[in-house]
Amino acid sequence: MTEIGWFAEPPRFGFQQRLAVRSELHRERSPYQEIVVLDTENWGRALLLDGALQTTEVDQAAYHEMLVHVPLLAHPRPERVLIIGGGDGGSLRHVLAHPVSRVLQVEIDEAVVRNSQRWLPALSGGAFDDPRAELIIGDGVRHVQETAERFDVILVDSTDPVGPASDLFSVPFYRSVREALRPGGLFVTQCGSPLLMADEWREAIDALRQVFASVDPYLTLVPTYPGVIWSFAAASMNRSPRMPLDDRWRTLLASAATPSYYTPEVHRASFALPASLLADRPLFPALHEAAGVASS
Amino acid sequence: MTEIGWFAEPPRFGFQQRLAVRSELHRERSPYQEIVVLDTENWGRALLLDGALQTTEVDQAAYHEMLVHVPLLAHPRPERVLIIGGGDGGSLRHVLAHPVSRVLQVEIDEAVVRNSQRWLPALSGGAFDDPRAELIIGDGVRHVQETAERFDVILVDSTDPVGPASDLFSVPFYRSVREALRPGGLFVTQCGSPLLMADEWREAIDALRQVFASVDPYLTLVPTYPGVIWSFAAASMNRSPRMPLDDRWRTLLASAATPSYYTPEVHRASFALPASLLADRPLFPALHEAAGVASS
Repeated sequence: MTEIGWFAEPPRFGFQQRLAVRSELHRERSPYQEIVVLDTENWGRALLLDGALQTTEVDQAAYHEMLVHVPLLAHPRPERVLIIGGGDGGSLRHVLAHPVSRVLQVEIDEAVVRNSQRWLPALSGGAFDDPRAELIIGDGVRHVQETAERFDVILVDSTDPVGPASDLFSVPFYRSVREALRPGGLFVTQCGSPLLMADEWREAIDALRQVFASVDPYLTLVPTYPGVIWSFAAASMNRSPRMPLDDRWRTLLASAATPSYYTPEVHRASFALPASLLADRPLFPALHEAAGVASS
Repeated sequence: MTEIGWFAEPPRFGFQQRLAVRSELHRERSPYQEIVVLDTENWGRALLLDGALQTTEVDQAAYHEMLVHVPLLAHPRPERVLIIGGGDGGSLRHVLAHPVSRVLQVEIDEAVVRNSQRWLPALSGGAFDDPRAELIIGDGVRHVQETAERFDVILVDSTDPVGPASDLFSVPFYRSVREALRPGGLFVTQCGSPLLMADEWREAIDALRQVFASVDPYLTLVPTYPGVIWSFAAASMNRSPRMPLDDRWRTLLASAATPSYYTPEVHRASFALPASLLADRPLFPALHEAAGVASS
């Protein structure tokens, strides 16, 4: 264990967050990516993939609760759920807090699952042992293309649109997701930083709109993610994700995944986009003009 | 002008944001504080008071629009408005975009007004020359105590609860604000970072609740403020600030202060507090436990 001071991702638009770090607990190169586990001063342990922070123990709830509870509570009766990515197990744990009958997870990199279980076990909290859960180590894009199984909710819990996960933000993938949804099904994907990855954000939304009848971006706050403001997109052919349908969220209060971020009011509020995003402009247009990036 | 690389406030909870800076344009010590103007790489010019970033040209809208438009559109007919602080003129400009008859501003430090006019003139956009506006250089706490004038909306646009502005977050001050409001009046104060200044945040809310019948914290996103998630509190004896009353916001679209952040949906959504804040706990309780700070 080495004292390493600060962790930061590369700056974007002259903006950078740093986390004080006590030590590096683990470093490993898998066939897919470099995996690092840090022990931070105040944010618990942090998982990095290729230098990009994926989750910390302290603020992961604001990410996982909004990725999972929004579609699972906007769907009237989600029984079968597919998770692509999400090897840390946080999404799986939150899905299993709902009365689902089956959750299939397809994660490409067994080393992410193994290291998360070893170093950040609270994230999954034993979820992989739940009899309703099945984990396949494999390519999620290919699995969705080839499977005959149909799901009520499909979640993409991946790295960002920039880089190795870019196939997960493409029109062909979204078409196969649409095919893999049961009637009335909902698809949600993490969608990066609308502040610091504005171009990728709009490209992902545009690709979704080519495939789905209804596409609703929504926001959460993850202090350790670049720019803090983080986005998801919910897509479907015929179902609004904009509010929870009933009081099922109350059952979460007594579950192993008691919400610390999600409330029904937060659910609804998360779809309220700032004026510039709503007008398909960058969140702070002048930021992108200053950087010489086309903003229209 | 010196090339200075990065600007950062001191870290809090092992968390720090940095802005790339081209040069320091100005530095001056007033009787109240040290005033610095930076030219940042991507965020326009930035105003610092005693090392704390007050505003940047690029993301100021998310702060000023939410401080101003929320109370002015939740009040049915705001005619007389008082601003305490706000020497950069951004709040004044946004208030004057509404059909108010008088705006009194009391700023303690003439050097903030002078330097903002010189270095960040777009923030006020000539607002100080508007015949409806009056600027008094003086102590806002004392002014509110002593004035016989009554206002429909009172705004505090100050530095944070930690430090020289702490009188602006005290029960005696809030009592005099209550007296200075017309019937049905609304008070809004900026309230710091609920993430990184959680103790001060709860103390300010508690103090307001000792004085006002209705206290509603609400949130905005200011990337260059510590922690990004920023808060206001709206207080009144008998008026809900939780939604705009009518279509007056449309008049802003054609004003000199066209919203880039505010929408009526954002207005309503901003009052949706994450579950832990709603339960009067820190936003991420484990953060404060890790730091050895009492979280209850």
